[in-house]
Amino acid sequence: MERILTAELSAHVGERVRIAGWLHHQRQLAQVAFLLLRDRSGIAQVVLIEPATRDEVGGLLGETVVEIEGVVVANEQAPTGVEVVDPTVRVVTEPAEAPPFELRRPKLNAQLPTLLDHAAVSLRHPRRRALAHIAAASVAGFRSGLDGAGFTEVFTPKVVASATESGANVFPIDWFGRRAFLAQSPQFYKQIMVGVFERVYEVGPVFRAEPHDTARHLAEYVSLDAEMGFIRDHFDVMRVLRDVLASMMERAADQAKDALAVLELQLPPVPRDIPVIDFFDAQEMIQTSTGRPTVGEPDLSPADERWLGEWAQAEHGSEFVFVTGYPMVKRPFYTHPDPTNPDASNSFDLLFRGLELVTGGQRLHRYQDYIDELRGQDVAAFEGYLEAFRHGMPPHGGFAIGLERWVARLAGATNVREVTLFPRDLHRLTP
Amino acid sequence: MERILTAELSAHVGERVRIAGWLHHQRQLAQVAFLLLRDRSGIAQVVLIEPATRDEVGGLLGETVVEIEGVVVANEQAPTGVEVVDPTVRVVTEPAEAPPFELRRPKLNAQLPTLLDHAAVSLRHPRRRALAHIAAASVAGFRSGLDGAGFTEVFTPKVVASATESGANVFPIDWFGRRAFLAQSPQFYKQIMVGVFERVYEVGPVFRAEPHDTARHLAEYVSLDAEMGFIRDHFDVMRVLRDVLASMMERAADQAKDALAVLELQLPPVPRDIPVIDFFDAQEMIQTSTGRPTVGEPDLSPADERWLGEWAQAEHGSEFVFVTGYPMVKRPFYTHPDPTNPDASNSFDLLFRGLELVTGGQRLHRYQDYIDELRGQDVAAFEGYLEAFRHGMPPHGGFAIGLERWVARLAGATNVREVTLFPRDLHRLTP
Repeated sequence: MERILTAELSAHVGERVRIAGWLHHQRQLAQVAFLLLRDRSGIAQVVLIEPATRDEVGGLLGETVVEIEGVVVANEQAPTGVEVVDPTVRVVTEPAEAPPFELRRPKLNAQLPTLLDHAAVSLRHPRRRALAHIAAASVAGFRSGLDGAGFTEVFTPKVVASATESGANVFPIDWFGRRAFLAQSPQFYKQIMVGVFERVYEVGPVFRAEPHDTARHLAEYVSLDAEMGFIRDHFDVMRVLRDVLASMMERAADQAKDALAVLELQLPPVPRDIPVIDFFDAQEMIQTSTGRPTVGEPDLSPADERWLGEWAQAEHGSEFVFVTGYPMVKRPFYTHPDPTNPDASNSFDLLFRGLELVTGGQRLHRYQDYIDELRGQDVAAFEGYLEAFRHGMPPHGGFAIGLERWVARLAGATNVREVTLFPRDLHRLTP
Repeated sequence: MERILTAELSAHVGERVRIAGWLHHQRQLAQVAFLLLRDRSGIAQVVLIEPATRDEVGGLLGETVVEIEGVVVANEQAPTGVEVVDPTVRVVTEPAEAPPFELRRPKLNAQLPTLLDHAAVSLRHPRRRALAHIAAASVAGFRSGLDGAGFTEVFTPKVVASATESGANVFPIDWFGRRAFLAQSPQFYKQIMVGVFERVYEVGPVFRAEPHDTARHLAEYVSLDAEMGFIRDHFDVMRVLRDVLASMMERAADQAKDALAVLELQLPPVPRDIPVIDFFDAQEMIQTSTGRPTVGEPDLSPADERWLGEWAQAEHGSEFVFVTGYPMVKRPFYTHPDPTNPDASNSFDLLFRGLELVTGGQRLHRYQDYIDELRGQDVAAFEGYLEAFRHGMPPHGGFAIGLERWVARLAGATNVREVTLFPRDLHRLTP
């Protein structure tokens, strides 16, 4: 008999079927026992009456892998409206010991470090699993949105000879006895590839040796990067980003429907026109409204971002807001200045619920501009990158979305580690 | 006027349009000049007659970024059946110098190291670009095939505390003053995730400190990994792999149609039943046929693989052939033995045109089996991995496809670096 999934049971009422999965929980009562079997599609209730079977199952540890044959019956009392009765239970794999926490509880009853130490088990909990499903669906939507807009996926190296954006915060590698580094971003490579495909994206790991132990930084995370040529300015990039976000929501709503239900999450609507506010206007507005001396600061503080999140919600009914025109001093060397104000840049951040989710902007595209910007630095280290500009590059720009930060913000997680399978940071290298 | 792509010109005959891209080539004749403009969709011919325009364009270097407005006319003599006449040409970006090789030639006239040193320009050549398109389409097909079979995409760390498969060939990292390593594969993580999702895949970089300078090894490459639970044995894995390959071909045929045409490549048909031969039977057959003493060797030599490739083609009309049941001594510690012969394993390689393309098999799933296998090693280093098995894992297996090797073999490239955007090896860390 072929195995079916627990989610398919309701289509087999009255039939004898085979299901398989993990012993999620069991409850032994005087005359009956209820066994919950978990597979990749959900959880099924199995009713045991026969004393020999009840005895046998009663001795099994949680997470035992079992195969069950039984008859599907409709029962309004059962959690999914159907249950399996008259079962035979075959143990496939016996665990060596009981799980470190009760997976059947609505929420895992353990501190974050314990959950992370025991990721192999804690990730089996429906809530943690749901978060990973949402991440996967979001990435699928990122890709399909860009595929539809003529982008090409690229795969660029994660080991580089010199630091990408700044000499700080890089991890050194011993590369056959030479010194190399983990890439902080695919920035240089995606720009080079604009010269090849005009529009490219990459989903991959990036590495930042952040020496700070904060709730929103990881030392390794998944970056959703896109870059596009033949733009007028950063507003063209923002339009593509808006559509990509919409595609991510659409795919999540479809492919991660069950996961969203498990977590009781609502996806934010992505407005046709996401509100946009200029950096300097934002500072003035915040200062006028709160009395905090924000004007003149080179960047927005977390409190400023929260304020703007609330403002966008109150004024525009949007959970997203673009801030444009950040001061050049706070943006990387490849940033394109605002042609009308050399202190401001053609850049943007996208805030989601008052937190920076995406950073992007227009880049320099003329060779001489790069030479001028890199004056005083070791230009030889940038040789392979600069060659793209030496041979003709169109005006271009792009953005990067932090995957874990997106899922964390959506799920209302206070720590980005709650939504990361196997986080890496200052203190954590395992599991 | 909105820009259109050169591939769209034939739908605009008689209209005035705007196109933009790179000055791919120009030919100045006595009365007329022909300019080839390259954009992401193809190459268009622009006809210049007006002397002032011809003079202006005549001074432009190759790879100048230009925007052209002109009228589309049908012309059977033109390479694509249409051309642009009566143009105005606007220079968007002037290159700093001429390209190091002529991109207009059917094949680039330079040695591989030169092409790789100048990747920013050489990748713009239609043939090199086509290879990257085929890679992207293949990966898209890998994902969609597995999505359709109930797999979930996962993102696992590339920095690990201990070597994945063996202590050799790992790159050490300085991780905030601690010693860490680049992951040789996502093997441990994808197995852990079978306990969560049953069926998972990951597309990501893997790192092997291969001290050998060969034409088919890279120190960093893209691995297409899949792993699935509740299998009977490795043949269940091979069936999924067969369907994934078919999905990769389908997607490449569709999404990379133009790229395949540029390279004049035929995709290999994937037989419904890929021929399968047992490792030991293969050795006997090769020895009987060639007289080479293969029986008793623990692995197949490259010559053996080529022989099997020819055999599969001649006997079964297949460019693919599975070899199953490799000796346990040559497979990693997590390999599941053949229940009928403890010296043989439930493993397989898939050869494509006589070269190993995929490695896979069934893994151990019982905790005690891992403890027995790891006897004498530092079990603490495997703690996070072993926890999955301590808490109930179903019989499972999986496979890994090397992306660059697939594209190289398909394209008949003699060196895998020819199909890699920015290869990393013993000697190469840039660009």
